[in-house]
Amino acid sequence: MRLGSDNTGPALPQVMDALTRANDGHAAPYGTDALTDAARDKVREVFAAPDAAVEFVATGTAANVLALATLTQPWQTIFCTPRAHILVDECHAPEFYTGGARLTLTGHEDKMTADDLTAAIAALPRRDVHASEPGTVALTQVTEMGQLYTLDELRSITDVAHAHGLPVHLDGARFANACAALGCTPAQMSHEAGIDAVSFGASKNGCLNVEAVVMFDPGHAWELERRRKRGGHLVSKGRFLAAQMLGYLEDDVWLTSARRANANAARLVAGLRALPGCTFLAEPQANMIFARLPRATHQRLHAGGAIYGLYEGPLEDGDPDEPLLMRCVCDWSLTNDQIDDFLALANG
Amino acid sequence: MRLGSDNTGPALPQVMDALTRANDGHAAPYGTDALTDAARDKVREVFAAPDAAVEFVATGTAANVLALATLTQPWQTIFCTPRAHILVDECHAPEFYTGGARLTLTGHEDKMTADDLTAAIAALPRRDVHASEPGTVALTQVTEMGQLYTLDELRSITDVAHAHGLPVHLDGARFANACAALGCTPAQMSHEAGIDAVSFGASKNGCLNVEAVVMFDPGHAWELERRRKRGGHLVSKGRFLAAQMLGYLEDDVWLTSARRANANAARLVAGLRALPGCTFLAEPQANMIFARLPRATHQRLHAGGAIYGLYEGPLEDGDPDEPLLMRCVCDWSLTNDQIDDFLALANG
Amino acid sequence: MRLGSDNTGPALPQVMDALTRANDGHAAPYGTDALTDAARDKVREVFAAPDAAVEFVATGTAANVLALATLTQPWQTIFCTPRAHILVDECHAPEFYTGGARLTLTGHEDKMTADDLTAAIAALPRRDVHASEPGTVALTQVTEMGQLYTLDELRSITDVAHAHGLPVHLDGARFANACAALGCTPAQMSHEAGIDAVSFGASKNGCLNVEAVVMFDPGHAWELERRRKRGGHLVSKGRFLAAQMLGYLEDDVWLTSARRANANAARLVAGLRALPGCTFLAEPQANMIFARLPRATHQRLHAGGAIYGLYEGPLEDGDPDEPLLMRCVCDWSLTNDQIDDFLALANG
Amino acid sequence: MRLGSDNTGPALPQVMDALTRANDGHAAPYGTDALTDAARDKVREVFAAPDAAVEFVATGTAANVLALATLTQPWQTIFCTPRAHILVDECHAPEFYTGGARLTLTGHEDKMTADDLTAAIAALPRRDVHASEPGTVALTQVTEMGQLYTLDELRSITDVAHAHGLPVHLDGARFANACAALGCTPAQMSHEAGIDAVSFGASKNGCLNVEAVVMFDPGHAWELERRRKRGGHLVSKGRFLAAQMLGYLEDDVWLTSARRANANAARLVAGLRALPGCTFLAEPQANMIFARLPRATHQRLHAGGAIYGLYEGPLEDGDPDEPLLMRCVCDWSLTNDQIDDFLALANG
Repeated sequence: MRLGSDNTGPALPQVMDALTRANDGHAAPYGTDALTDAARDKVREVFAAPDAAVEFVATGTAANVLALATLTQPWQTIFCTPRAHILVDECHAPEFYTGGARLTLTGHEDKMTADDLTAAIAALPRRDVHASEPGTVALTQVTEMGQLYTLDELRSITDVAHAHGLPVHLDGARFANACAALGCTPAQMSHEAGIDAVSFGASKNGCLNVEAVVMFDPGHAWELERRRKRGGHLVSKGRFLAAQMLGYLEDDVWLTSARRANANAARLVAGLRALPGCTFLAEPQANMIFARLPRATHQRLHAGGAIYGLYEGPLEDGDPDEPLLMRCVCDWSLTNDQIDDFLALANG
Repeated sequence: MRLGSDNTGPALPQVMDALTRANDGHAAPYGTDALTDAARDKVREVFAAPDAAVEFVATGTAANVLALATLTQPWQTIFCTPRAHILVDECHAPEFYTGGARLTLTGHEDKMTADDLTAAIAALPRRDVHASEPGTVALTQVTEMGQLYTLDELRSITDVAHAHGLPVHLDGARFANACAALGCTPAQMSHEAGIDAVSFGASKNGCLNVEAVVMFDPGHAWELERRRKRGGHLVSKGRFLAAQMLGYLEDDVWLTSARRANANAARLVAGLRALPGCTFLAEPQANMIFARLPRATHQRLHAGGAIYGLYEGPLEDGDPDEPLLMRCVCDWSLTNDQIDDFLALANG
Repeated sequence: MRLGSDNTGPALPQVMDALTRANDGHAAPYGTDALTDAARDKVREVFAAPDAAVEFVATGTAANVLALATLTQPWQTIFCTPRAHILVDECHAPEFYTGGARLTLTGHEDKMTADDLTAAIAALPRRDVHASEPGTVALTQVTEMGQLYTLDELRSITDVAHAHGLPVHLDGARFANACAALGCTPAQMSHEAGIDAVSFGASKNGCLNVEAVVMFDPGHAWELERRRKRGGHLVSKGRFLAAQMLGYLEDDVWLTSARRANANAARLVAGLRALPGCTFLAEPQANMIFARLPRATHQRLHAGGAIYGLYEGPLEDGDPDEPLLMRCVCDWSLTNDQIDDFLALANG
Repeated sequence: MRLGSDNTGPALPQVMDALTRANDGHAAPYGTDALTDAARDKVREVFAAPDAAVEFVATGTAANVLALATLTQPWQTIFCTPRAHILVDECHAPEFYTGGARLTLTGHEDKMTADDLTAAIAALPRRDVHASEPGTVALTQVTEMGQLYTLDELRSITDVAHAHGLPVHLDGARFANACAALGCTPAQMSHEAGIDAVSFGASKNGCLNVEAVVMFDPGHAWELERRRKRGGHLVSKGRFLAAQMLGYLEDDVWLTSARRANANAARLVAGLRALPGCTFLAEPQANMIFARLPRATHQRLHAGGAIYGLYEGPLEDGDPDEPLLMRCVCDWSLTNDQIDDFLALANG
């Protein structure tokens, strides 16, 4: 039972099938093939953004930093939360790609509010040549703690950003899970809410290794392409990224998959909630769960081979009732039996 | 008939099978999974280099620039030929990743000799703080014009490099084709010939999107890993790169595939040689062919739907006998029939 | 009366004389002249560091970032306080020169303690490829709020840094004022206290435009030179930087000048302390004063033409008794009369 | 006798006087002082460019790379000659500041023609995402070999550049010498000839350490300022750069000084021409001379203590009649006696 992250899960059968179908004969290289064109168009259709610049890359970090570098000057600050992936999990890739832009913490933990952003901008009051200049606002949806921005929250933040002339990027590594949970369309959760660029994740939700950068201002297209190539992110056999994306987007597979992941998480949450001593850091809203369970419960889970994130410890020594923090992320592939097995271990 | 590049070809069935087999259940992310460990070890075994630092990436450019950046200071010159991929096809990715190292042309067209290198180093005579400093020597095997360095040629170049304290990188986008053509082992064509780091290509010879960076000095391992992550090249579902590499390396599939590609090229060469007015820019040595054919021949090929590189023109207007330069690259997947169809078109 | 910063003050007569003397005939360029050699040796003598790498540059930012870039990997964090000049006043020059290292806030306001540093290092607990890695510790002496680290405080911080393998840089834009205030030698306040590199400021304390980078490990010399040149900071007529430094260091001019600046500040502090409603943010320790005075006092000062930093406002409107924050920095050149005039204005 | 470079010479008395006058009391820092404003306006007046963005820096490399970085994208090629200072003498500073732009050799030795530029642009025929893109054209006047572009030559080159949408930068380390030699105005030799940005040198022609970046499109002003600060090139006591520039520009001191330097060179040329075995690499046009003299002549010069650039050798051993290449650069400060002494040594 591996609940550590949705990037530990397998690829969807529809994605594998698309990959197999794409492996037929020859195709033009470097994203000039018909499948890539089709996949680009499909992304634009899904986002109801017929003019958007769309490029595919193999990693979420690449998607994030290419968008950020296109939007941000090197002397600007990127506003992000203290838990943002771009801050804590990308080995300074944002700084590298922007030529030295800075990440400034805004908000608490994994979310910022419009007021937080207003305050953060105000905290850079000087507009002189010495000081860091306000730049891109970087949000994450689903957040790193499994929370959601409502559409109204997104809009209130992007309103502040745009009032200051700042673009807004959305790290959507779990974009599909958020759409599924909010019951909204990709358009509603992006450009209609004032988002200027999206890292549209697909790997976590059932692809092998593909993400899309979506920039709604088509004027960024050439610079984005250039930055992708200069970063070494233009794959030669582009059809194999495109095929994944097509298999993922056709017939709403992406949404069905995200709904299953969210449902799996809901089943797990229900089971955990019934456990003695279980508390949730915050009410889970999509497919990611942060909860505290007694040490003894963790010991049973580990003895049974369960794999998930454990952030407090030590596991072995200490009061068996002491609550320790865990993270579980459910992907689409988990079965009810696997979840129930996990809960059974926890129940002892 | 698509003979424009081996990166237009399909993936090998063994690679697709390995990918399918890898898509089973959950696996640890970011290259910490068992398949990645196995693939790393397999690369080390193939290279007879048990301590080598080995990392997988999705593009050849990434492999090249991560190795170069690990070996080169920003104030140093990378010696490469005027046709080097890193120079003409990577959108300044080497300059970006090294923080501003320079590419200095050495040799003629696609090959350099030990004497060329000696002269190029001597042409940077000043060792003062103002001048560019000699740095990494960057070779390509198979070269961009389809030629080979013999093992003796490699050794003579690396001897010069090492005598000046310079490391040597080998862009092996077609490493397998070179090994197959020379009948040598990967070890003989790399560390035994004085090569310090290899971009070991796999995509062109039958994978979807995986290349290995191999650095024989294990002291580079951590920096290489850091640079890969910072460049956004650490894929989250690492097993899907590793599986490709394993499917490619097990049972000498990589070598068999390269031999087929080379044999396909040989069949094409034989057929072209028989054509009236055909001349080869140089005798093809692996799976890439540069030849000149009369304009009329090209017109027939294009009318028949053949796709390949045509570098001189115009195709439509001019003396039907005027020779125009073409590039054909054969991958493993071409059938004798496809090659014969191409030749039949050319024969008219 | 200009008390805004010590960089608004004139150059010392000894420095101007040295400059004039240096302007005699021809001298070798780019720091290869005899005066530069002499100035380097003089710095080494003043620091009792006969092997130190010493380079001269025209700005304090250049000194800081060349040292930091030599000490720090791009994936590392530089620990500094929330008020550090490198953080708030250098337009991301540290990020630019290091290729994307990050500045992480440590401590409160302008000072950190050994415990702060320990906590900040512990707050980057992961040593994996994704996370920022602990790097250089950056201190400022005199601090941005006019405070001092005692030698014991410095040692306790550098002990923590070195225990984690981290180098320590000291931004000494006001190094002389600190030495004068602490009554210690440059050696005691640098390498003997565990400092690895110093930006030894001279412009603020009476030069026109020269600062020295001093790195106590001579192994850094060549990289430092290369980084200086690559940054465009190697001046062609090096003798005119060297001459300033020599005029500044000979006969303890630098120390005498700093003592005068500190004494000027003490005179101002004494006068301010006697004013009704004056409070100091912290007890001034060198030549920089942060104090709050009633609005009415500020209004009189401004009406009289006094120039200094005013950080709270508005000046014109509001309760005349409301205290507003000011910064005054005294340089060597202020006369008792000027200070007394300032105080007379404040007294009304 | 030091004729190695004009950067070995002293500062002009008018510049020293201006510096001394500027050293009076306090002045606003970081280029916000009245002298800096006046110096900026004076530069604009001299260039007849009332809207130009003008910034002062302490080195010629800084001036060059700040202008180039403002004009050039990282994936673009800067066209320059094989002898360009930015190529051979700036330790990759252009690559560093542009984030990886490339320097592409254009023309022969130290000059390019409009045809050379046309050919160089045509040699980058691909406009795809892989290839280097044409970017800034970088000229030098006086050239590195002491030659001049006529105004017509400049215009023909800038016409080609602008027809391709490329900006043109002029490295004017010896701008004054060129103006004096051509008998033209700064406006004629810059924006009226199609130049978009100038590094207006002053150090070599009699200042201590100041150069101006002049960009004729005022839209670049803010980016230029930001890049200067981020590069660490904004000096705190700006008045001391500004004063030099004012002393240099007022009363046509800059022009008088350049004329003297050119006249000194002409005297030296006349004397050299009369020497047996003297040949000029090209007819000297300003204050820089490349000539070949017999080895025996060089031996006499060296024995007599003359200092200048000697590029062929060895000095000591070989045929006394063998011609060896030398470079002499005359600055304003040389006296007739010094030149005659040099010639007397050469005459033996």
